[in-house]
Amino acid sequence: MGPLKGVKVLDLTSMVSGPVGAMMLADQGADVIKVEPLHGEQMRHMAAPHNGVNPAFYSCNRGKRSLAVDLKSDEGKEILLKLAADADVFMQNFRPGAIERMGFGEEVLRKANPGLIYLSISGFGESGPYAQSRVYDPVIQALSGATDIQADRTTGRPQMFRIIIADKVTSLTSAQAVSSALYAREKSGGQGQHIRLSMLDTMLAFFWPEGMAGLVYGEREFDVRRLQGSQDLIYKARDRYITAGAVSDAEWGGMCRALNREDWLEDERFNTSAGRVVNAQERKSMTAKEIEKWDSEEILARFQEEGVPCAPLLDRMELMDHEQIIANASVLRTDYEGFGEVRQARPAARFEQTPSTIARPAPKLGEHGREILTELGYDESTQQKLIDDGKLAVSAEPS
Amino acid sequence: MGPLKGVKVLDLTSMVSGPVGAMMLADQGADVIKVEPLHGEQMRHMAAPHNGVNPAFYSCNRGKRSLAVDLKSDEGKEILLKLAADADVFMQNFRPGAIERMGFGEEVLRKANPGLIYLSISGFGESGPYAQSRVYDPVIQALSGATDIQADRTTGRPQMFRIIIADKVTSLTSAQAVSSALYAREKSGGQGQHIRLSMLDTMLAFFWPEGMAGLVYGEREFDVRRLQGSQDLIYKARDRYITAGAVSDAEWGGMCRALNREDWLEDERFNTSAGRVVNAQERKSMTAKEIEKWDSEEILARFQEEGVPCAPLLDRMELMDHEQIIANASVLRTDYEGFGEVRQARPAARFEQTPSTIARPAPKLGEHGREILTELGYDESTQQKLIDDGKLAVSAEPS
Repeated sequence: MGPLKGVKVLDLTSMVSGPVGAMMLADQGADVIKVEPLHGEQMRHMAAPHNGVNPAFYSCNRGKRSLAVDLKSDEGKEILLKLAADADVFMQNFRPGAIERMGFGEEVLRKANPGLIYLSISGFGESGPYAQSRVYDPVIQALSGATDIQADRTTGRPQMFRIIIADKVTSLTSAQAVSSALYAREKSGGQGQHIRLSMLDTMLAFFWPEGMAGLVYGEREFDVRRLQGSQDLIYKARDRYITAGAVSDAEWGGMCRALNREDWLEDERFNTSAGRVVNAQERKSMTAKEIEKWDSEEILARFQEEGVPCAPLLDRMELMDHEQIIANASVLRTDYEGFGEVRQARPAARFEQTPSTIARPAPKLGEHGREILTELGYDESTQQKLIDDGKLAVSAEPS
Repeated sequence: MGPLKGVKVLDLTSMVSGPVGAMMLADQGADVIKVEPLHGEQMRHMAAPHNGVNPAFYSCNRGKRSLAVDLKSDEGKEILLKLAADADVFMQNFRPGAIERMGFGEEVLRKANPGLIYLSISGFGESGPYAQSRVYDPVIQALSGATDIQADRTTGRPQMFRIIIADKVTSLTSAQAVSSALYAREKSGGQGQHIRLSMLDTMLAFFWPEGMAGLVYGEREFDVRRLQGSQDLIYKARDRYITAGAVSDAEWGGMCRALNREDWLEDERFNTSAGRVVNAQERKSMTAKEIEKWDSEEILARFQEEGVPCAPLLDRMELMDHEQIIANASVLRTDYEGFGEVRQARPAARFEQTPSTIARPAPKLGEHGREILTELGYDESTQQKLIDDGKLAVSAEPS
């Protein structure tokens, strides 16, 4: 099951940038061991738990096993080195320099495991004035131009993305890099390597394709703020907000007919594609005035009928009941003892031959400590001693 | 060079969701042939060109070769089938059903190439009421809850992300899936497979980790809008906008000292982490009043000194000159004949053993048509006949 079946991942990351990437690998079949401090990583403490696991932690760590161990102790170090010797991938997102001080720098692990793929995620890169700063989503947004991109079109006031976008784009970029490195390792006869990435670089790369178009050509630099195409294409129907848009002539014609404004078809400001762009503001305010006369269901049906791209703006409580999302089976619902029904977004890439699966719920802190130590050959009494000595936390028995 | 060296990719995608993913593969060493209609794909026509290539097209297609061919003609079909027989990856983002009608459905290509990894990107999935709708960024945003996430915190009015976020997250998700499938193919003795993904599913998966926390547990569903942690952490200093934030006690202490408001250290509303969360609104407005008394450079230096995470809000014209971005060498500048200096965001994942590189600029339409046909064994006179008959466009000679 899963394209990464058989791949062993040691995930020492915390919060979101690392964990979500490791979770993608788990969804694709990798055996991911989440190594946590005895008190659990920070994300466990960000919201109230349900059955020992808060919902955001769940959605960043499903499918993994948890080992809670004191990595400062000799016994903890030994456990980690044994795990690393047998792993394919090692992931860490501590501040630059920290993992070396902990005793698990690349050189140390590589000695025991030449094939190891070693991934280091930083906030800002490994040098430069911010390198040692705490990674903090608004700071990455500030430095990557995100707040400029989101700036209010009327007042110019900068605004932020309302998601921790840098963390999540970094997680995707990391998982992609790991998968490519796994492929390269197969081709190169087992050679591992170090992959480094920063959240700041990741955001620049993410914004660049269309968001930084003004910076591409040295000879033709232009202020990108001038060309912010995307307005909020949001209209208020009588009862709710919708989106609708007309780019092609056919779509514009359809929109006019749906709104019973065939007279607009003659309007020279709008009857070419270029004209509709130039006169966008006027077109939008005229359209808004017509749409607000209709009930959303009625006008959306008319738009659909006429081939005009449109949709209701769904709030998050409505999502799971929408017919398109039901048709796609986009949300997986699974019953787990203790949790009850758990909903997760389906892993988006659907592999026909090696389907992704969510193998297990997110782990409770240290849930798989005994199981993992048994796999490493630690006998029951040694495990108990580690627990009694406060080197290993097993807050839940494996099921 | 590059972890995907030797991988051959046929990229039939247009606009952004497909092309940017294929570009990542090219950055990582894959030989990517962009197959376009004779008039060029839509993205070529979205802005004014410079040396034949507009800047957004450039940033979605660098490192590829371009073949412009009439795929409706028998000769064009034959060329594509020959290329597919020798490719590792085939990528397409036409509307569901279209690629089969064009004659290049998976079954057809798989006959000639059992190892082919066949990637299909759709907007909304392959069934359901929106499946045949035109993919349109605002519609994906509407259906995925994006406009709810971005809603104004005061008025509740929905707003949109100002980037084509669904396209770009889809491109990352696609590239990751292709890399995993390449790995799986190595492990399985050469078996290819079909990977399908929709932009809508991709956005749900992307938002889920923290953006949909209220939907995770059936027994504990809550309205996620209540828990929108992330405010706009934006302050106006005398001369410009900055961000600054204090989560830990140490950071809060540092902020009070930097602002010369040691008296706040005694304030019981703020001297615990929980208190600072509960009284966030008040704390933020008090902080804002202090920050606006300072010049940005001075207060940012004081915050840095005190270990308070902070940064100026950079607009996109300032980015390339910022010391952190210079320290990271995040922006690659290359001179190409005809283009002059071209700037691109560095591929974010830095592979130590198999470094990514931007092998060539984005191609002009059909630039590599002759080169590619020569590789397929077409002689000069056959190529000329295809051009004369209007089946092949070679608007530029390969360099």
